[in-house]
Amino acid sequence: MEKVLAQTFTYEALTSLIENVFREANFNSYQAGAIARVIAAAERDGCKSHGVYRIAGCLRTAAAGKADPTAVPQVVECSGPIIKVDAKCGFANAAFEFALPHLVERARKHGLAAVAINNCVHFAALWPEVEAITEHGLVGMAMCPSYATVAPTGGTKPLLGTNPFAFGWPRPDAAPYVFDFATSVAARGEIEILRRAGKPIPEGWALDAEGAPTTDPDAALSGAMLPFGNHKGSAISTMIELLAAAMIGDLTSSEALDELGTTTLAPRHGELILAFDPDRFSAQSSVAAAVRAEGLFDGIVRQGARLPSQRRFEARKRSLSSGIHLTADEIEMIDPNLDQ
Amino acid sequence: MEKVLAQTFTYEALTSLIENVFREANFNSYQAGAIARVIAAAERDGCKSHGVYRIAGCLRTAAAGKADPTAVPQVVECSGPIIKVDAKCGFANAAFEFALPHLVERARKHGLAAVAINNCVHFAALWPEVEAITEHGLVGMAMCPSYATVAPTGGTKPLLGTNPFAFGWPRPDAAPYVFDFATSVAARGEIEILRRAGKPIPEGWALDAEGAPTTDPDAALSGAMLPFGNHKGSAISTMIELLAAAMIGDLTSSEALDELGTTTLAPRHGELILAFDPDRFSAQSSVAAAVRAEGLFDGIVRQGARLPSQRRFEARKRSLSSGIHLTADEIEMIDPNLDQ
Repeated sequence: MEKVLAQTFTYEALTSLIENVFREANFNSYQAGAIARVIAAAERDGCKSHGVYRIAGCLRTAAAGKADPTAVPQVVECSGPIIKVDAKCGFANAAFEFALPHLVERARKHGLAAVAINNCVHFAALWPEVEAITEHGLVGMAMCPSYATVAPTGGTKPLLGTNPFAFGWPRPDAAPYVFDFATSVAARGEIEILRRAGKPIPEGWALDAEGAPTTDPDAALSGAMLPFGNHKGSAISTMIELLAAAMIGDLTSSEALDELGTTTLAPRHGELILAFDPDRFSAQSSVAAAVRAEGLFDGIVRQGARLPSQRRFEARKRSLSSGIHLTADEIEMIDPNLDQ
Repeated sequence: MEKVLAQTFTYEALTSLIENVFREANFNSYQAGAIARVIAAAERDGCKSHGVYRIAGCLRTAAAGKADPTAVPQVVECSGPIIKVDAKCGFANAAFEFALPHLVERARKHGLAAVAINNCVHFAALWPEVEAITEHGLVGMAMCPSYATVAPTGGTKPLLGTNPFAFGWPRPDAAPYVFDFATSVAARGEIEILRRAGKPIPEGWALDAEGAPTTDPDAALSGAMLPFGNHKGSAISTMIELLAAAMIGDLTSSEALDELGTTTLAPRHGELILAFDPDRFSAQSSVAAAVRAEGLFDGIVRQGARLPSQRRFEARKRSLSSGIHLTADEIEMIDPNLDQ
């Protein structure tokens, strides 16, 4: 059996290969398709941490009975500016795809709208969702809990999740302004990478199980991570627990971990997504929202600072012109038959 | 003329004295009353930085023609979940008081609602606003630009404001969960206090006019402050410029500074306030939003961490039982006749 070589793929071809992996594991087309699209998008954008490497975790979570790969998301409420979607224990990605047309229609009609997704299993980044909202000329904000691995500032025990917060602003002639970050100092995966490399983690990232600061990745993983920006980041992370768990009637990060019993599978909880129509909010103004926003971006870039996500957009550009490059090991994750 | 002694006041008496100061400077009752209530609330809560010390700046801003003390705010749109209020170049506080009943009614009706205030002059904290929203059992979020004193992460020049971000969550049997912070590492006033004391500022707070890190408060004030939490805080501050300036058709921090020409008066721009009805969002859930939230707060407090605003609520409790204490110098700011 000869070892397959590194290879490049189009976004469509890669999506299709990933979708097949999930279809063969008895995921329905909603689940398999939605997951494949975000994993392929991550590879296209050079986000290896959310790329094909995540496939195994999704399959494992479904095999453990912690996610339903045959779930058909259901829009259970769509009244006024609020859309409630029951993911039926499927993955968040399919639920978001069901919600998006409603969110766009409601945000255009009312000026702002919210999607609350319940009972969804999370493994991906939030930027694909806020970006999808910006493609409709709308402003997007998304947040969700995860599982309890982060101590509130001043505390010592895991209670909050790494609780990602994402925001997207549409730009007429450029890639959107998008950020998506964990509200912990570092993502859990970053600690894991240093652990495998036998390297210490920077000071300020984590506490050990006794609550003392540590630079030992093992001690950090069995202790607690810390929020970004001290008490301010801790407050934002707590806000995410309140809005995207308590308020929408779904599990907090602490409850999600209790339910799952492990951090090796993807957690199930809820998600909150807001969309705003800038044209509607700025209707009485003599300066269009887009014009003012471009002035701001120009002021950032002109002084040598970068807009967030630019590395990702540059990788996307390269992928679209010369293909998405996968190593031999990565290809084995999506097509074991290629080397036969 | 005998020097007046330190004295204590009830909240009502202090509000009335402050209101008189503004009435005598020809502020109308909407402006004078709304400003007096937030300044008295700050003194009641031990927030000296937003207390009677702010009176002089408000008077100066009006005297310079940069705020209209006779403005009557106008609700210019109230359709669906969006309320637009024109502050008519008066202070934000009166505009918020006009908006609040509409915001509460709309949030209850639709589940979420937004107030965009335009043309308002800002000098106060945002916590009185989110707290007022929580008093109606609703969740509040508020944000606004200020004037350009903060460099984006990776940059060296003032472009962003100290852009405060506030959030409030109602609690049935306790003071609400409330935070309100500048998205810069430190508030400008904190640098000013160290400057007057002849002390250096901590590392990481600011850059000098050449863009080099500095611990000299003078160099910091003529250079640029830094966002909290590095690139993540910088992104949140930028989001505030986009949502609460560009989107609502009002001035960014950079434009507000250009318009005002100085950082010694209060800036004019806009503000965005969101309200959510947690009962509406959690309607299908078997666990009430409040129950889950209390579990979260309990998990924070039980491990020795503090909820934000607790020092303020403790000061309020003391003030309500034994009065609001003002020094002789502070009393002179609100009643020069007391020492005659």
